Amino acid sequence: MKIAIDAMGGDHAPKEPVLGAMKAVMEFPDLEILLVGDEKQIKQHLKDNTRITILHTEEQILGTDEPVRAVRRKKNASMVLAARQVADGNADGCISAGNTGALMASGLFVVGRIEGIERPALAPTLPTVAGEGFVLLDVGANSDARPEHLLQFAIMGSIYAQQVRGLASPRVGLLNIGTEETKGNDLTKQAFGLLKDSGLNFIGNVEARDLLEGAADIVVTDGFTGNMVLKTIEGTAFSVFKMLKEALTSSLKSKLAAGVLKPELRDIKMKMDYSEYGGAGLFGLKAPVIKAHGSSDATAFFSAIRQTRIMVQHNVAGTIKEMIEAAKTAE
Amino acid sequence: MKIAIDAMGGDHAPKEPVLGAMKAVMEFPDLEILLVGDEKQIKQHLKDNTRITILHTEEQILGTDEPVRAVRRKKNASMVLAARQVADGNADGCISAGNTGALMASGLFVVGRIEGIERPALAPTLPTVAGEGFVLLDVGANSDARPEHLLQFAIMGSIYAQQVRGLASPRVGLLNIGTEETKGNDLTKQAFGLLKDSGLNFIGNVEARDLLEGAADIVVTDGFTGNMVLKTIEGTAFSVFKMLKEALTSSLKSKLAAGVLKPELRDIKMKMDYSEYGGAGLFGLKAPVIKAHGSSDATAFFSAIRQTRIMVQHNVAGTIKEMIEAAKTAE
Repeated sequence: MKIAIDAMGGDHAPKEPVLGAMKAVMEFPDLEILLVGDEKQIKQHLKDNTRITILHTEEQILGTDEPVRAVRRKKNASMVLAARQVADGNADGCISAGNTGALMASGLFVVGRIEGIERPALAPTLPTVAGEGFVLLDVGANSDARPEHLLQFAIMGSIYAQQVRGLASPRVGLLNIGTEETKGNDLTKQAFGLLKDSGLNFIGNVEARDLLEGAADIVVTDGFTGNMVLKTIEGTAFSVFKMLKEALTSSLKSKLAAGVLKPELRDIKMKMDYSEYGGAGLFGLKAPVIKAHGSSDATAFFSAIRQTRIMVQHNVAGTIKEMIEAAKTAE
Repeated sequence: MKIAIDAMGGDHAPKEPVLGAMKAVMEFPDLEILLVGDEKQIKQHLKDNTRITILHTEEQILGTDEPVRAVRRKKNASMVLAARQVADGNADGCISAGNTGALMASGLFVVGRIEGIERPALAPTLPTVAGEGFVLLDVGANSDARPEHLLQFAIMGSIYAQQVRGLASPRVGLLNIGTEETKGNDLTKQAFGLLKDSGLNFIGNVEARDLLEGAADIVVTDGFTGNMVLKTIEGTAFSVFKMLKEALTSSLKSKLAAGVLKPELRDIKMKMDYSEYGGAGLFGLKAPVIKAHGSSDATAFFSAIRQTRIMVQHNVAGTIKEMIEAAKTAE
């Protein structure tokens, strides 16, 4: 198995992706890694190249680049080349911590959609208080989804939760403004009917306030709402921790007490840090494409590599293809 | 000035609304209060009836009632009667901590919309780290808003922020998935244009992750998205505090340290508790209707009464009427 990594993507590139890659090949003897990026820079950190090869390129996509245009014009950017390796059969999946929109465009235009999938979905695993996490999709900021898209999101999320997270019968929830069937806008009302008849383990509407309490294993919503909810969770957690930090350093007395509590506070912060749960999958593509968090360190890259490896091993993309075909035939 | 209060609404009724009312008449010599609800129960807590009268009724709207049906059928429910007093000119505004949907229906059907307002909006003031707070509207779970609704929300929010919160030139932000003008779904793209040309202090798109950092004084969005964001903020803060509480009581050592930090932690929790910022206004009605948080205590009722009083004093409803007419004429 070979996984391509955009070695130039993310806040700490190329150091952290390279360290994560070295860690992963040590752990998984069947794994080969292709690092795509500036050879000279990569080599500064690559102390052991066992089962690791470099595909050199100097071009990069920046965080400020307009995604679709950048992917079309910068054909030799490290991210685009990594996706190209997957499309050409040189790699089984790819990972980038770079520009999210550009990775979505690379997935769509270079790796390609599974036939029958109308819209790929960006699907992070978000934290829960109990620690299991839940898959939220779509958070890709796609505007104006249709009910059938939400059904496909539910199918893809269920397969992922079964194959990768090992849940026998993952609970699918529809993100909505109330739990009653009649709640919501046109989209959620119609999606509710489709999900009810889907044969999935659909548990009905779930409310945003119950997400971190583990209301469902898979939560489906349109990309606009999902993106809002994701960013609200991030922003709220960030602001609360910021207030906490200010309070805990406001006096000598509080500083001393905070020192005692440091391990506990770090645990909570880690629990809320969803890069701990691996990268966000781009579901609905012909092969696994994983978006690692922009701030990923070597451990986060290692998690994303492990996650991609399981997706390849369990043939998640192939299973999604079969299920989507079956759903179409059943219509 | 007379304010009607649904004495039977909320988790701690009628005790807390009655205590809040007594506190308010003490503070404001120009204020009369009409408590609507079960006279016998109210009298158990009403130690001083200076400028407080009771309108007796035994009917109530429950939290589980279907809002619109309940308001239509239970014409003598304390909440509906309180709204009726406003419609009949016996009170200048009303407050309830009961069923949110039913209060919105009471506002709409009993108090009535301002002419020209297509959709009233539910508008809470949410916390910010710096403590000023921001007005978010609509959070009323209205499905499928139109761009013109968002413009009206911005006008109403601006008037409220000027008249009640005393901001000279409140910053209006459009909640969106990115800050660039071209981002978002059809609704936000069209609303952006309307807001840009509105003459308001429109600062462009704001992202959900920056809300608690004080990105804008007024944030407009459709009721579905607003409701999601509101509940996500609530849920995330709740979950983080829950984890914090568990961590701080996990050992004797952490309990002792947590004891030292108690005042600081309580401060943060209070800062995140938006009932501290008063109730949520129902904007676009002929008179102020305020939704107090369900868990409101006497202090929260007092805040809601003070807020309603300022809205009446500054004629917020009348100013909204004028501005909406002016906006129509300008078209």
